[in-house]
Amino acid sequence: MAKYQKLVDEIRQQIASGVWLPGDKLPSLREQVARSGMSLMTVMHAYQVLESLGTLVSRPQSGYYVAPQAEFLRQPEAHQKVQLAESVDINTFIFDVLQATRDPHILPFGSAFPDPDLFPQRALMRSLNTVAHSMKPEDALNNLPPGNEALRKTLAQRYAMQGIAVAPDEIVITNGAMEALNLSLQAVTEPGDWVVVENPCFYGALQAVERLKLRAVAIASDPQHGLDLDALREALSRWPIKACWLMTNYQNPLGCSLSDEKKAQLVSLLQEKGAFLIEDDVYAELGTDGEHRHPARYWDSQGTVLHCSSFSKNLVAGFRVGWVAAGRHAAKIQRLQLMSTLSTSVPMQLALAHYLTSNSYDRHLRALRRSLAQRKMLARRALTRWLPPEVNINDAQGGYFLWIELPPDLDAMQLYYRALARNISIAPGKMFSSGDQYANYFRFNASWAWGDEQEQAARILGELIRTLLDEQQKRLLSQP
Amino acid sequence: MAKYQKLVDEIRQQIASGVWLPGDKLPSLREQVARSGMSLMTVMHAYQVLESLGTLVSRPQSGYYVAPQAEFLRQPEAHQKVQLAESVDINTFIFDVLQATRDPHILPFGSAFPDPDLFPQRALMRSLNTVAHSMKPEDALNNLPPGNEALRKTLAQRYAMQGIAVAPDEIVITNGAMEALNLSLQAVTEPGDWVVVENPCFYGALQAVERLKLRAVAIASDPQHGLDLDALREALSRWPIKACWLMTNYQNPLGCSLSDEKKAQLVSLLQEKGAFLIEDDVYAELGTDGEHRHPARYWDSQGTVLHCSSFSKNLVAGFRVGWVAAGRHAAKIQRLQLMSTLSTSVPMQLALAHYLTSNSYDRHLRALRRSLAQRKMLARRALTRWLPPEVNINDAQGGYFLWIELPPDLDAMQLYYRALARNISIAPGKMFSSGDQYANYFRFNASWAWGDEQEQAARILGELIRTLLDEQQKRLLSQP
Repeated sequence: MAKYQKLVDEIRQQIASGVWLPGDKLPSLREQVARSGMSLMTVMHAYQVLESLGTLVSRPQSGYYVAPQAEFLRQPEAHQKVQLAESVDINTFIFDVLQATRDPHILPFGSAFPDPDLFPQRALMRSLNTVAHSMKPEDALNNLPPGNEALRKTLAQRYAMQGIAVAPDEIVITNGAMEALNLSLQAVTEPGDWVVVENPCFYGALQAVERLKLRAVAIASDPQHGLDLDALREALSRWPIKACWLMTNYQNPLGCSLSDEKKAQLVSLLQEKGAFLIEDDVYAELGTDGEHRHPARYWDSQGTVLHCSSFSKNLVAGFRVGWVAAGRHAAKIQRLQLMSTLSTSVPMQLALAHYLTSNSYDRHLRALRRSLAQRKMLARRALTRWLPPEVNINDAQGGYFLWIELPPDLDAMQLYYRALARNISIAPGKMFSSGDQYANYFRFNASWAWGDEQEQAARILGELIRTLLDEQQKRLLSQP
Repeated sequence: MAKYQKLVDEIRQQIASGVWLPGDKLPSLREQVARSGMSLMTVMHAYQVLESLGTLVSRPQSGYYVAPQAEFLRQPEAHQKVQLAESVDINTFIFDVLQATRDPHILPFGSAFPDPDLFPQRALMRSLNTVAHSMKPEDALNNLPPGNEALRKTLAQRYAMQGIAVAPDEIVITNGAMEALNLSLQAVTEPGDWVVVENPCFYGALQAVERLKLRAVAIASDPQHGLDLDALREALSRWPIKACWLMTNYQNPLGCSLSDEKKAQLVSLLQEKGAFLIEDDVYAELGTDGEHRHPARYWDSQGTVLHCSSFSKNLVAGFRVGWVAAGRHAAKIQRLQLMSTLSTSVPMQLALAHYLTSNSYDRHLRALRRSLAQRKMLARRALTRWLPPEVNINDAQGGYFLWIELPPDLDAMQLYYRALARNISIAPGKMFSSGDQYANYFRFNASWAWGDEQEQAARILGELIRTLLDEQQKRLLSQP
């Protein structure tokens, strides 16, 4: 093959795979010569051939650009929407559900994140701006684990105001609550150990159990009363449980919270048995009934509870800053973090520390809770209007999820795929359980502003559920 | 106990643990009443008692503040400097070494990071500033794994300019190279699998092997020629090796690079045996001999190599943005990331994407390489001047590490502890090997500006080594 042809093929391949998009300026002749070791003549020849093929256009005094028509060269993207397969790997499925919520054409009722329009974007960006003007090079090294000192102090103060004694040194700043939870679980377990999760629960807990090669007992939680403490007591007697990963407030996906009494009992039960509680409290600030609920950590003074939370669900999306109040486990968690991600982004830590000391976070939270309560009410009303009466909508006193129960034997996965084909995403119950108990449930994110499009979506969901009911009816009738 | 006494004790405890520091404003009476449920009288009484004890001072029209003298209440901090223990857990030790380099009174020759003063702080902060002015709320959700599209495209273009075909879709943006490496290893192995690491090697590789419960074969690397390919070939025949974690350019801690020929051989050897290469290439841009070295990925067109790197060692510290060019493993790595940290901070991704398109990264890199070469030369000269002639200083054609060999049987850990007592940190060879072969080596970070203080430190290191030599001599003489 002639040398220039090699370069021609290479560049066409690069355009096909998206390295250069239509309109992009290609490296100059000089740069190509320098990097390829080819002669100027060869490179010029290749560019001219590409121009004659219509792949590139040259602009005098400027250089070579990818032609607008070159789009046809791009390989068709793999079809993005998930397909119903006979056997679905649940992690792949969860991944697909999360990916689908990113498509701007799809209404993200399956998303786990609240509407970012509810967050104080301007104040946050002012803080980021301040960091951009004041950050010093050495700050990078001063904020390695356990993380920014001012931020940890502010968090400790917020704990203090709740009557919880947490020293700044017990707090480790993490890449979101997800890392806090994962590192906490890792810190108190070894592969093969037994742990307790809820059923249903946040899929992250199930994935962590799998990834850390733990053995899990799933304890039933109820939309009204939360975790069944008697079942937990029994599990603690039967298995050598090392840790429980639980959401005590506004549980995902149910929305339920444990009563103060149950939290106190939970802590003393775990202390008695020598098991740890990884407390996932990311919705702590989102109580929409005006009540503040303590975490179980409030009743612990023995280092039983590792309390994990973040700013991602109530202040800012995408900063990826969370924390764990880890007590005596703080040093171990720092070491684990140094081995896995090294540290949390420093400008992000500084920006949050700045926001928290120069704005009223609590005032924002009050406004956020009001908006969420309002939006959830509108969503619930619309769904009540459009979904068949056989559908049961569980609403909680906090957070932004509705937990929706379809009639028995109706498959929420079927509903998921059909809704997605209509550009509506939901989160099927299967994502939140290793068993099949919640196959007829789905989680509905009600944090979005409710308008015509949303109303229309509720109507479509109603239609789709009625169709599923009809099909079920026909199947039953056709049976001998 | 009287109610007010409970609050008095609580606040004194909070001050002792650093929640409120001298000068901090305490929550107002009203806030305390609201959160504690105590009466205004009780809270006022408590604050007045604390004032009479000298713990708080009140400022009219403003509130109560922690008294300057309240410092005495703080518990003495655990002594920060590491102590020589008979048996040292190596991970704890590595953690301590890293922590020691953060103390501003300690000269950080043991640090893994280059001097952040060498980075284009102003340009980076301009980019951060731009993000602060242009970021939209929805950006948070649009940059979930695989990460920001513009950033991935820019990286793909940089690969293209090296003659490496990597599509933007094959790249996953991660929390630094550390996460890229860990997720890559996890993606291609199961617990119990065999992997190859280098000896000596970056301690992160050893920690990952331990954390993922893998079995490792350590292949010797040589400061001049790098990895022993014959030994690797033998290992691949004897064990069912799934993956190798190697640094092909400016290896840490040795500084060596594989020749083009050896890289090509390495890739074809691994392809033949069906093993993957996790290529840690974080120093790729730091060749100080003016030569650009290809990664092994250059010779791979079959998806054998997962190429990991970051901006942390050559552009910015503390942003925590790295990536892996993972080929067909990209989807799996995205899923693993969603389960462990969810995603990389969005403003950091946007800021880097902006920097890379609006600045000449390559011009910065050229200046950086010149500075590093210059500083390393000065450090080497000083060390040659002050260290005893029995010490061997290995210098490489890139990066910023010197790999220093003490006479046989001299313990670099002893040197580490004694140097630390003189406020000098080094990185003992023990950190880079699971065996004892490198007990008489240490890694010296030569990226810092060389001045009187540094010269003085080199002199002290020389003294300490001479003392160790004397002590060794005496022990030998005293033996019967």
